[in-house]
Amino acid sequence: MTTHDHLLDQPHHDGSEVFVTPGTPALGDPVPVRVRVPKGSGARGVWLRTVRDGEPRMAAARPDGGDAHEDWFAADVVVHHPVTSYRFFLDVPGGYRWLDGRGVHDREVPDAASFRLTTHAPAPGWLTEGLAYQVFPDRFARSAAADARELPSWAVPAAWDDEPAGSGPLAGTQYYGGDLAGIRERLDHLEALGVRTLYLTPVFPGRSNHRYDAATFDAVDPLLGGDAALGALSRAVHARGMRLMGDITTNHTGDGHEWFARALADPASPEHEMYVWADAGPDVVHRADGVPPYVGWLGHGSLPKLDWATRETWRRMVTGDDAVVARYLREPFGLDGWRVDVANMTGRRGSADRALDVARAVRARIVAERPDGALVAEHFHDASADLAGDGWHANMNYAGFTRPAWSWLVPAASTVPSLDLPVPVPRRPASAMVATMREFAAAVPWQVTAAQWNMLGSHDTPRLRSLVGSRDLVEVAAALLFTYPGTPVVLAGDEVGATGTNGEHGRVTMAWDQASRGGGPRWDAATLGVYRRLSALRSSSGALRAGGLRWALVHDDAVAYLRETPGERVLVVLARAPWPGTRLPRHLLAPGAHPEVLYGDVALTVTGSGLEVAGDGPGVGVFRLA
Amino acid sequence: MTTHDHLLDQPHHDGSEVFVTPGTPALGDPVPVRVRVPKGSGARGVWLRTVRDGEPRMAAARPDGGDAHEDWFAADVVVHHPVTSYRFFLDVPGGYRWLDGRGVHDREVPDAASFRLTTHAPAPGWLTEGLAYQVFPDRFARSAAADARELPSWAVPAAWDDEPAGSGPLAGTQYYGGDLAGIRERLDHLEALGVRTLYLTPVFPGRSNHRYDAATFDAVDPLLGGDAALGALSRAVHARGMRLMGDITTNHTGDGHEWFARALADPASPEHEMYVWADAGPDVVHRADGVPPYVGWLGHGSLPKLDWATRETWRRMVTGDDAVVARYLREPFGLDGWRVDVANMTGRRGSADRALDVARAVRARIVAERPDGALVAEHFHDASADLAGDGWHANMNYAGFTRPAWSWLVPAASTVPSLDLPVPVPRRPASAMVATMREFAAAVPWQVTAAQWNMLGSHDTPRLRSLVGSRDLVEVAAALLFTYPGTPVVLAGDEVGATGTNGEHGRVTMAWDQASRGGGPRWDAATLGVYRRLSALRSSSGALRAGGLRWALVHDDAVAYLRETPGERVLVVLARAPWPGTRLPRHLLAPGAHPEVLYGDVALTVTGSGLEVAGDGPGVGVFRLA
Repeated sequence: MTTHDHLLDQPHHDGSEVFVTPGTPALGDPVPVRVRVPKGSGARGVWLRTVRDGEPRMAAARPDGGDAHEDWFAADVVVHHPVTSYRFFLDVPGGYRWLDGRGVHDREVPDAASFRLTTHAPAPGWLTEGLAYQVFPDRFARSAAADARELPSWAVPAAWDDEPAGSGPLAGTQYYGGDLAGIRERLDHLEALGVRTLYLTPVFPGRSNHRYDAATFDAVDPLLGGDAALGALSRAVHARGMRLMGDITTNHTGDGHEWFARALADPASPEHEMYVWADAGPDVVHRADGVPPYVGWLGHGSLPKLDWATRETWRRMVTGDDAVVARYLREPFGLDGWRVDVANMTGRRGSADRALDVARAVRARIVAERPDGALVAEHFHDASADLAGDGWHANMNYAGFTRPAWSWLVPAASTVPSLDLPVPVPRRPASAMVATMREFAAAVPWQVTAAQWNMLGSHDTPRLRSLVGSRDLVEVAAALLFTYPGTPVVLAGDEVGATGTNGEHGRVTMAWDQASRGGGPRWDAATLGVYRRLSALRSSSGALRAGGLRWALVHDDAVAYLRETPGERVLVVLARAPWPGTRLPRHLLAPGAHPEVLYGDVALTVTGSGLEVAGDGPGVGVFRLA
Repeated sequence: MTTHDHLLDQPHHDGSEVFVTPGTPALGDPVPVRVRVPKGSGARGVWLRTVRDGEPRMAAARPDGGDAHEDWFAADVVVHHPVTSYRFFLDVPGGYRWLDGRGVHDREVPDAASFRLTTHAPAPGWLTEGLAYQVFPDRFARSAAADARELPSWAVPAAWDDEPAGSGPLAGTQYYGGDLAGIRERLDHLEALGVRTLYLTPVFPGRSNHRYDAATFDAVDPLLGGDAALGALSRAVHARGMRLMGDITTNHTGDGHEWFARALADPASPEHEMYVWADAGPDVVHRADGVPPYVGWLGHGSLPKLDWATRETWRRMVTGDDAVVARYLREPFGLDGWRVDVANMTGRRGSADRALDVARAVRARIVAERPDGALVAEHFHDASADLAGDGWHANMNYAGFTRPAWSWLVPAASTVPSLDLPVPVPRRPASAMVATMREFAAAVPWQVTAAQWNMLGSHDTPRLRSLVGSRDLVEVAAALLFTYPGTPVVLAGDEVGATGTNGEHGRVTMAWDQASRGGGPRWDAATLGVYRRLSALRSSSGALRAGGLRWALVHDDAVAYLRETPGERVLVVLARAPWPGTRLPRHLLAPGAHPEVLYGDVALTVTGSGLEVAGDGPGVGVFRLA
């Protein structure tokens, strides 16, 4: 079945500046909110519904301007709660409608998708300003110093161009020798790509190439160049006006961690009570060597779980003077924030759930150390209950962006696995992508949506290029990434067409030798050009960086949406395949203006009847209409 | 647009005994759950998804029988959390599906509608076994003793047949003189109706006919006959095998309450800190008489809000030896449980939210006093966040039952107001009713859905008869009430066709004089017959009392659904108007069986092609198919 829904005749509201007075309100503040009501929607009156102390309250909205095509209404949300929810009631002949974050409903709906205002400050502005770039240190770049390093016993040396193992013991032990000095030598590449935030997966020593099994939090891995190398990289990154984020495991340490060693050696030690010991239940590790059974991440013995019921865990990780979370934000390291690994499981086990407490404490400590510090979580699934606004600033948006985007762009015959699901990623119509994106976005405050880490892949997923199968579809995907609300995050290598059928297999090195020759099988210069232009496009447009999101059209094979600030309106058209094209209303174009082509080659023609969008595909078109 | 959706070709699961092993599991227990997968659904494999410690886990389901029409699968949910959520993954060609409480989805969905198992005991069995009957004491029946009572200054005497005032001061002060002895004299009426639970709105003295403004919790209102009358009523009710529930205001007292008087007289008194004093903010009451400003329920000065940050409030209301909640469960009163007024706002104000703490404590105290005690909340709106399972056993299900039912059955030109909304109740197609019912039900554990207090009206709403406009539609509504999962609750008078355009206007007296004459303008004997037969129908069928709910068909003007236990299958057909009729699959009928007509006059004909349902309407048909 082909769907072809025009959505522009529906009332619209989101948390962006067109609709909500900017700024972080205090408890008790009245915050004006506006709603756009197209004439065609039939609404003859608008009310604001807020929930106060558990009880909804209705207030008539006041007319607030309009034109021949639409009416505007405004009302004040009194911020009575740290998170105050609201939605709009539309008096429509034949039965009132509700407008919430999922859209317009012709029936009663629960509150889960209501809009929200929060008294909690949003993510720092730098986080959402530009591209974040994820680097897996072992695979990015290798400095000359790497040759002199003695390898630890776990490491199996690989040549720089070797294809990574996708499974088996080798996947965690192949050692390519990338290091922090190597990254520092390649910052020109980041700058040319418009990177504003460099995010490094862990730099603490472990017994693996991924280092999520930390052996200490007291020093940077000597294999990466040690503390001095991180300090030098930090200074170099900041000198270019970029930010640097680290990666911390709050859920577990490695079983080679010095704390775990002391815990095993002395059951009376403070370290002993920092881990979760359990005889029975899920994820319990029973070892043959006489070690008492403990809980490991997903049952992995190498990753013993930290116990957040223990004061010592809090002190060492978060609250102590020299706590891990704080120390690396200071000189000489100067990190600007943390990405938290397995944040969704941290402090959670059975009837104990301290995840939100930990998130709040980590954020408070970060902000105490540096007021513009950032906290981003790893949560692959429904994180809405954890994103109230005073814990994580944002989440790695697998559920609300990555998965739905993949499902729209993947070919029907794809065999690439769906992460944790037992089937390949299925190809679905755009209606599925948009409904999923809207529903997950509606479950969190707009300020979170506007900061979410959107990705087309990470070190834990198949590579985008392998998923979508063609350079053209990589371009469509990247255009979505750079024009959708939130922070675009690129895994190093995606911008040059890296491939890989799962997370481990996709941890390919950067082919700098091919780069220096202008391209090669592992350095797709055309894709790099696409990423650079799209990154520059986002930098050039306030609407793309901070505007609202209004869906205009959903066809199986194409979507169109508007990103809008008070002074700018950008139309984005994305097609995964040829489609019939459409006509959008003429009045989207500012009076007397012509559409300014910002990116792509989809044709947009202004006629007396409207804006005619051509049905070419795959294709991208980005236009400034006002 | 006419919708006509057959839903029987979709996979189905709910929390009833067909699908989930009965009983309350303990932490760690594996609980087998089953799913019904029609052959036509295309599913070639089924997985169970649970969320454990914040992370989803997938487990292949095992084949568990089936026949020519459907396959069954089973899997074990390990109850790792007090509330453990799960849903089903269906491997379908063209793209996997998710099955959750809202139904089947061809895209990724959040967890809000996942199924849930909980370690908290469900509501006591008696609550859901039979009809609960709501009595507003001033309006039900007046004993001879009432004539001798001296009226307080607030009371404006009304004659028994007077039409109640729908607004203005008189609405709260009209005094009809119903009393507890009067109720006791009319228990034959309740018994003939199949009432199993008598629920009384407040019996504490106040300054109003509704008594939600308690002046003390230490005595039953002498106007109702005092403590002795409540004890006598309780004994009489229990002697008939019925239960008795009271109504308590945990959110506020009256401003005439003895506690409030002491609070005003002495700012150093323990009572002073039991109330919420505030200079500014919503709902603050500024009085002219020099009393310091305080918070009233929705700003009403007569209803000062209790402060649940105060230990004294907890002690007197819930935790003390002689706390209000406990005292009336004991002899001589012997209440079987409480309905809590304004439960949704109790303990909530701004950044303070103790509502769930209060609910849990009240429940724990009730159960400590009598293990089979019940706790039902008043929450008109989205109560899902408050119904985790260890607070309220159930809620007055306005959002998930009353409102959607009204919107399906009300005429298009209705002028009856939508409770708190600024327009009359709109007429909507059944698809709106069913989607709303499913979405609200999906947001709570099945054991809550199976206990919810479903109502077609209460003392706070217009009367059903005035809403739907005809006796025939009252019958359709009542048939829905008595065949839908949960506890049917009838406001006294609905069963004889009482009218009223809002809550106050609908607080009509029972016309016992007309009853004794076999009927009259205020005693519709035909409607009473309908209620009695439907109540008896529910008593006669385990499937109607405790079965699962499988929607079979949704047409604008008709719905059909199945209620099923392991040994029984009941088909319910409801039509609000003539419709085309439909054909249901033949295999719904047990082999060799004929449909047994349990209620109504909708024709069901068995042919070689299937079960032919006639399109008469308004109409009701209830059939036992197995």
